[in-house]
Amino acid sequence: MPLDIPNVVIDRLPLYYRLLCDLHADGTAVVSSQELGQALGITPAQIRKDLSYFGRFGKQGRGYAVRRLTEELRQILGLDRRWRVVLIGVGRLGTAIASYRGFDPQGFDIVAIYDANPETAGVKVSPLTVRAVEALAGDLEAQRPDIGIVAVPADAAQDVIDTLVRGGVHAILNYAPIAAHVPTEVQVRQIDPVLALQGMTYHLRRHGADERSRA
Amino acid sequence: MPLDIPNVVIDRLPLYYRLLCDLHADGTAVVSSQELGQALGITPAQIRKDLSYFGRFGKQGRGYAVRRLTEELRQILGLDRRWRVVLIGVGRLGTAIASYRGFDPQGFDIVAIYDANPETAGVKVSPLTVRAVEALAGDLEAQRPDIGIVAVPADAAQDVIDTLVRGGVHAILNYAPIAAHVPTEVQVRQIDPVLALQGMTYHLRRHGADERSRA
Repeated sequence: MPLDIPNVVIDRLPLYYRLLCDLHADGTAVVSSQELGQALGITPAQIRKDLSYFGRFGKQGRGYAVRRLTEELRQILGLDRRWRVVLIGVGRLGTAIASYRGFDPQGFDIVAIYDANPETAGVKVSPLTVRAVEALAGDLEAQRPDIGIVAVPADAAQDVIDTLVRGGVHAILNYAPIAAHVPTEVQVRQIDPVLALQGMTYHLRRHGADERSRA
Repeated sequence: MPLDIPNVVIDRLPLYYRLLCDLHADGTAVVSSQELGQALGITPAQIRKDLSYFGRFGKQGRGYAVRRLTEELRQILGLDRRWRVVLIGVGRLGTAIASYRGFDPQGFDIVAIYDANPETAGVKVSPLTVRAVEALAGDLEAQRPDIGIVAVPADAAQDVIDTLVRGGVHAILNYAPIAAHVPTEVQVRQIDPVLALQGMTYHLRRHGADERSRA
């Protein structure tokens, strides 16, 4: 497998994978890059280029074999196994994350949850009991989870991320509105609704200007 | 302003804007593309290229004037005004979104919240009272909000999105794990932690393989 696949390509693969799983469940055997593109709002050329990084999945003019491509993507993305996840921050957002039923079917097990609030430690959130954040460093050493989800306030987030990195966690999903600093070997993905909204207001502003000039 | 700026560039501008606001608050007057890049994990060349779409902000060898660039980005991104947001879905996640204090300081006002559960309608979530989702279409007609946030279950999401689009909403932040179908003039951003995790497990899998081969 090539080593220098752009992150922007990697980050599209889960979209393809989810759509292919749905197609497979619906009994679709073959799908074209046109059909994939239409369903995802991505050009067929982009899809062909993205998938070409990983070998020749499609046959010219015949489309992609759904089952085979799904299985290849599952392996490429590392979804043929389960991943152990710790969650830090059990406020309203963290509670919603801990209770989300979308993680388990995709192979992500939240194995421990932590909070800095002494009143929250000891509380049960579905099957798990909230642990004090002071226990995090020792737990990481002992249990070696794969992924950390950070849902603490902005001013506490970098400290928690540093603890995760020192504890050997190489993948961090950061809900706190900060640009996390991590070593290059650690992956971070940011979930930030304000940044997403601000990417859309650019278009709204132009659209509004267009509408006014037509009026 | 040029019309054909790639979305991937637009979506980086809020990152620059947030960092520049922090720098301005700290009293920094001038910043180089190297310093911006280091703080954000983006190459200085990429930052210079992104900002060059919008005119010549920086002077060769002297860096960017923080206050001027912040103000220009505020206008470019449409953050020099307030935006009216409706939220549909007031389960655990929707409640966390409705209670999030990060929207207001950035100009986003959640003006109405909706839920399909008859037991949730009428409940107060901070200053707002949950309305029945059946009222959404009429409310959109009367109140013309700018943005819809969708936090309903996957199987209800496309219907809600269709209602928003018919009601004239041109920007949708979608938390439901579906690939939303919208007309080309409507912006959608997806917030999906599973997709974000799956983009990282690709790297974890390779990293793990590396570690094992070194062991």
